[in-house]
Amino acid sequence: MTAAEHPALDALRRALGDALSTEASDLDAARGDYSGQRSESAPLAVVHARSAADVQAALRIASAHRLPVVPRGAGTGLTGGAIARGGELVISTARMTRIIAIEPADQLAVVEPGVIVADLGAAVAPHGLFYAPDPASRAICSIGGTIATNAGGLLCAKYGVTREAVLGLTVVLADGTLLELGHRTVKGVTGLDLTALMIGSEGTLGIVVEATLRLLPLPEGEPATIAATFPSVVSAAEASSAITAAGLRPAAMELIDPLALRLIRAHLGLPAVAEGSASLIVQTDGSAAAREAEAVLGIVRAHGGEASIARDRHEGEGMLAVRGAFHPAMAAQGEVLIEDVCVPRSQLPAIVAAIERIGERHALLIPSVAHAGDGNLHPNIIYTGDTVPERVWTAAGEIFAAALELGGTLTGEHGIGTLKRRWLGDELGEPQLELQRRIKAVFDPLGIMNPGKVL
Amino acid sequence: MTAAEHPALDALRRALGDALSTEASDLDAARGDYSGQRSESAPLAVVHARSAADVQAALRIASAHRLPVVPRGAGTGLTGGAIARGGELVISTARMTRIIAIEPADQLAVVEPGVIVADLGAAVAPHGLFYAPDPASRAICSIGGTIATNAGGLLCAKYGVTREAVLGLTVVLADGTLLELGHRTVKGVTGLDLTALMIGSEGTLGIVVEATLRLLPLPEGEPATIAATFPSVVSAAEASSAITAAGLRPAAMELIDPLALRLIRAHLGLPAVAEGSASLIVQTDGSAAAREAEAVLGIVRAHGGEASIARDRHEGEGMLAVRGAFHPAMAAQGEVLIEDVCVPRSQLPAIVAAIERIGERHALLIPSVAHAGDGNLHPNIIYTGDTVPERVWTAAGEIFAAALELGGTLTGEHGIGTLKRRWLGDELGEPQLELQRRIKAVFDPLGIMNPGKVL
Repeated sequence: MTAAEHPALDALRRALGDALSTEASDLDAARGDYSGQRSESAPLAVVHARSAADVQAALRIASAHRLPVVPRGAGTGLTGGAIARGGELVISTARMTRIIAIEPADQLAVVEPGVIVADLGAAVAPHGLFYAPDPASRAICSIGGTIATNAGGLLCAKYGVTREAVLGLTVVLADGTLLELGHRTVKGVTGLDLTALMIGSEGTLGIVVEATLRLLPLPEGEPATIAATFPSVVSAAEASSAITAAGLRPAAMELIDPLALRLIRAHLGLPAVAEGSASLIVQTDGSAAAREAEAVLGIVRAHGGEASIARDRHEGEGMLAVRGAFHPAMAAQGEVLIEDVCVPRSQLPAIVAAIERIGERHALLIPSVAHAGDGNLHPNIIYTGDTVPERVWTAAGEIFAAALELGGTLTGEHGIGTLKRRWLGDELGEPQLELQRRIKAVFDPLGIMNPGKVL
Repeated sequence: MTAAEHPALDALRRALGDALSTEASDLDAARGDYSGQRSESAPLAVVHARSAADVQAALRIASAHRLPVVPRGAGTGLTGGAIARGGELVISTARMTRIIAIEPADQLAVVEPGVIVADLGAAVAPHGLFYAPDPASRAICSIGGTIATNAGGLLCAKYGVTREAVLGLTVVLADGTLLELGHRTVKGVTGLDLTALMIGSEGTLGIVVEATLRLLPLPEGEPATIAATFPSVVSAAEASSAITAAGLRPAAMELIDPLALRLIRAHLGLPAVAEGSASLIVQTDGSAAAREAEAVLGIVRAHGGEASIARDRHEGEGMLAVRGAFHPAMAAQGEVLIEDVCVPRSQLPAIVAAIERIGERHALLIPSVAHAGDGNLHPNIIYTGDTVPERVWTAAGEIFAAALELGGTLTGEHGIGTLKRRWLGDELGEPQLELQRRIKAVFDPLGIMNPGKVL
């Protein structure tokens, strides 16, 4: 306890008891996320909410004291959206981990926001169901965080992003009001779609305390996985476009650019491939999986790819593990600024070429992987040192400009957070940005919800 | 021209020339829609917008004169959302019918809002693509109207509603501001999702002047269609639940209740079926269509259904034509109040039973059809006379209460309009309703956009 204790702390302590923490380790953890950024100073306190009522109590007190609030889930975000700094109150839903209901007949689950995405998957699989959004961080990220960022993943070209998977939300607004938004039904058009508005709002409008999620039947049979190596990234990207254009709908289609492929293979101790080679890993599923895989193979070979189909699930998982090793392999190179642009699928070769030029211009290594089925590309800009060098930000800005120029967007699935805030106006334009700020003010008239993030 | 001409008319005439109509037939047409309702008096004028610029000019003048505006598409709505009355200006986008671009490689189309849904389907089919939202009115309804109501249709349990199909929108706000919302990409989380907020907003936030729509590859092969007759509606509903629970994903699954079945068959001149019989029509598609149809057949028979699989596309279309004859058959009975409740799929037998009791209690015929795959039920309350009798409204209110009680919603796909406005608060609650009104005020501070509708 410090000499000049914030007047809100006493009220929070009385209302929340043990759920309020001012322990140094808790405060310190809330200063960072997986973007590698850290705030300059520790927040005031962390509320480890156990219930919606805790969240309401904390927000009522925060409102009364005009205390800025940072909603936080598992802390695995990649854009600094859940990073807290001095004078801020963190409200964490990470300990609200109950799966309240699984209803196979209605193909839905009702969960608290702290449930880990992979845990939900494991809980619903025995019912023959799955939850479609599957970010690479599924083993460690929470449902609440994926709702805050409208997270995607490998499967979303075929099965949709988080917005398509959320039927209804219970949220707490800045003043402590509890609202039930949306439906338990798969359709509904009663008034404005505030459920959709909450999804991807990155903690700026309210805090999700319960979610009703749509589940899908697990595809029947075994998936089929194809790993292909191309002489160039352009031919790999063209093959992926041709697969989509042929009307095939792979469950996953991951492109690995030459630099990423070289670094991953070295990291995994695999033999090197020819200079300039790129990889495309495609997985088909459902009852037509094998036949679709044969069609994919034909297209891959017609585009100069060398490819094979996995003989069993184990071999298929091995193929996808190469993609899964991307983040550890990059982290082994130094610090990494992870980007997340998305372009129309047909522009994938163009954005890949643009990023290569930007890397050369700034003498930076920018390996990329892409969810090729939906044009979502993750360039990783590698650097050394504690702070992001200015030329890395310059390169990031040039990548965003290239994506916008090609009809794309700054962020496919990670969000804006603090990291991309300076470019937000480039995409939205000032009139829309102003409209968004005024909508935020309707939810949060005092401006206490996640200030300094996104808007 | 009347003696006391509204002062805005002259400004509108100068700005819009021929696009402004005060012809009696135009004014009269805008007093109604397919809900059977008519406003008490004709609007001031109709703008037949030819372009976004026309919409902007009309809205700027309307704002300057505080003139209430009713956005209107093809006028096929079922809840009075596009009905105009005395003193109001209608801005119609029905003549903005250009398909601006079809981009097969990116699986998207860019269209003006007046494009008829079926026309878009016909235009993209040669590219091996389809537009998934398929309301029963697809041959006459416009894209703009389907966006305003987040329209569904027969295919949406498998392929999603309008919200899932819209990537980006160009909209004009009440003050004439033109905004580009959303993306050309299938993913994106840059700021608040205003595209989703516009969808289903029924003309209360702005006017859509262009839409970027996601297309899907046409399923390969021929669909398979099954028509089944059950001894009771409960067994038909249970069979439909079992089909979903088995992980099968039919493209369409339509349930026809005993009263609707009797009236449709009489209308089509088909032989009567046993008293109390209900029908379930299921269509599977894609490469596994035939195998899935066999699985459906097994479930249908296990639930006491007598069923057959169509031998060819023609026979399948004949089976679905029975469902297609629902609206004409009902219209032949008298006036019809068409409802649109949606319940969790498992509650379909319960809502069907509840509606039967409500019909008996009020001595009303309430035949229903349901999109059984998503729990969306259309009870049609039949009455005679020019105005809706009070006991019909009472019965409608009881149906809504039953749907809410079962975890459902007032409207799956038709919207609120004027028809369901009195029940809106029952579903949303006053705090959410107030939040929605304040969001509307951000878009439309003067309150000129579609006043008296929804909020």
